[in-house]
Amino acid sequence: MSRNLTLAVAQVGGINADDSKPHVVARLIGLLEEAAGRGADLVVFPELTLTTFFPRTWFDDEGAIDRYFEKSMPNSDVQPLFDRAQQLGVGFYLGYAELTGGGKRYNTAILVDKQGSIVGKYRKMHLPGHADKRQGLPNQHLEKKYFLEGDLGFGVFDFHGTKIGMCLCNDRRWPEVYRALALQGAEVVLLGYNTPDFVPGWQEEPHAKMFAHLLSIQAGAYQNSVFVAAAGKSGFEDGNHMIGGSAVVAPSGEILTKAAGEDDEVLVVKIDLDMSKPYRESVFDFDAHRRPDAYGIIAERKGRGEPLPVNFSVNA
Amino acid sequence: MSRNLTLAVAQVGGINADDSKPHVVARLIGLLEEAAGRGADLVVFPELTLTTFFPRTWFDDEGAIDRYFEKSMPNSDVQPLFDRAQQLGVGFYLGYAELTGGGKRYNTAILVDKQGSIVGKYRKMHLPGHADKRQGLPNQHLEKKYFLEGDLGFGVFDFHGTKIGMCLCNDRRWPEVYRALALQGAEVVLLGYNTPDFVPGWQEEPHAKMFAHLLSIQAGAYQNSVFVAAAGKSGFEDGNHMIGGSAVVAPSGEILTKAAGEDDEVLVVKIDLDMSKPYRESVFDFDAHRRPDAYGIIAERKGRGEPLPVNFSVNA
Repeated sequence: MSRNLTLAVAQVGGINADDSKPHVVARLIGLLEEAAGRGADLVVFPELTLTTFFPRTWFDDEGAIDRYFEKSMPNSDVQPLFDRAQQLGVGFYLGYAELTGGGKRYNTAILVDKQGSIVGKYRKMHLPGHADKRQGLPNQHLEKKYFLEGDLGFGVFDFHGTKIGMCLCNDRRWPEVYRALALQGAEVVLLGYNTPDFVPGWQEEPHAKMFAHLLSIQAGAYQNSVFVAAAGKSGFEDGNHMIGGSAVVAPSGEILTKAAGEDDEVLVVKIDLDMSKPYRESVFDFDAHRRPDAYGIIAERKGRGEPLPVNFSVNA
Repeated sequence: MSRNLTLAVAQVGGINADDSKPHVVARLIGLLEEAAGRGADLVVFPELTLTTFFPRTWFDDEGAIDRYFEKSMPNSDVQPLFDRAQQLGVGFYLGYAELTGGGKRYNTAILVDKQGSIVGKYRKMHLPGHADKRQGLPNQHLEKKYFLEGDLGFGVFDFHGTKIGMCLCNDRRWPEVYRALALQGAEVVLLGYNTPDFVPGWQEEPHAKMFAHLLSIQAGAYQNSVFVAAAGKSGFEDGNHMIGGSAVVAPSGEILTKAAGEDDEVLVVKIDLDMSKPYRESVFDFDAHRRPDAYGIIAERKGRGEPLPVNFSVNA
């Protein structure tokens, strides 16, 4: 008997700084309803779904960013999304800017089950960019200024019998993320992202943005025998362009569905969770093949350092 | 000033069980001479370059495999390759089956400098396949029977000022390999492989063999800001088919050169080692962005297990 999950990815076109949260939430409800109508069990929304990607902007007055943060979840602005999802019996993943009661700021995602309960929470572990103001550039990348590094680790949560891991945007480029989740039994990894064309200090070719995004999620899926469902906030936002490319990837590493455009777009795919079994039981049978005895350096070193000594003799 | 290395990948078409080693070595010398004529500093040969991929065959008499193993390196069969490389001032990477004086068997690769000295050695850490005889199949995959797991770790070696890491075949599918090498400053990762169409127990689509090979080496290069040079033993060998796809990949993850066929074929590309700098100093600045505090599970767990507890509160 196959174990099916109907997975939806809701790509969201640009959200401008002057879009009101109730207006944004109404848009998300429209996408949720489309996904539910097409049979979705779970809808993936992007990173920082409720607002513009404000880390591109330097604010001299730090208080100016408060409007982008959620002080509780759900709150009155977001409650209609929770209510509609519960009515429709659909779960969702939602990325947003979190401000805690203690005044801490995180780039956060939650997993909400079909009954409307928040059953999982993730705070972005790999914050890209910088904390200083860079001069003479079209935009900034201030995640290291506006957010604290995540403090919840890489959690795996139960969603009606499916083991779900979460991550956010830049996390997808770090193979440790998928591996830490897979070692806890994750079957599906959910990812929200905002990927601008221009990132200060990173002189990558424009075409390579999409390539590197897809390469990262496809390798993560393949090397860990998991599905990856990635939803981007895409297209033009306050005059800045972000890539599309929202997608669902199979444990083979192959793309099952991918957004064709850069605006609001719902992708739905019925996955068979057991598709990962032949991989987990052969080439990626971790118990049979992994070598944790030789992986210590990954958790011990942060940056690049000198080679470790190797005691080899040519003929030994 | 750019730092250049002219890198050659020598794909080797099938080597049959009845091909003599002197004959094989003469073929390799031909490829080496072509590479040197095109300016190569370093030539990458495949895994188990000197023989057929004998782990596909079950031998009731274990002594029957001895002929495939090298008891010293170089030995009289291989000395002509060392001599010619030294004459031409070219280094090389060579994969072969190693039998130690103590009777231990490894799937091994060596790095030889331009003066003909063996300056690095690697023993395959991730042995795929099985040790038992599988019935009713066109072939076996007996690396776990014929070899011991590598005991030298992931070493990084100096090659005339370039930091070189080595791995073999199945290692390329494990992101820990590239990461362990990159954390020791590796700039180029060398890989030899034999990838048959049919692997017992792994029901992958035929087209996906090449896809998964390229996905793995491209992701390894991109996520670690290294070049990857991969040489396959390819095409038909004793009636068994193996994929081609020998290639050099840039730190962007993009393929710089790839074999078009499945027979003997030399690829040469002049790389600028500093091409990796913009990546290492921004998106993949490990010191700025990695989270080893959360990677412990990668070195602590071998197989998939239960989720770790996550202490989150919805509004905290």
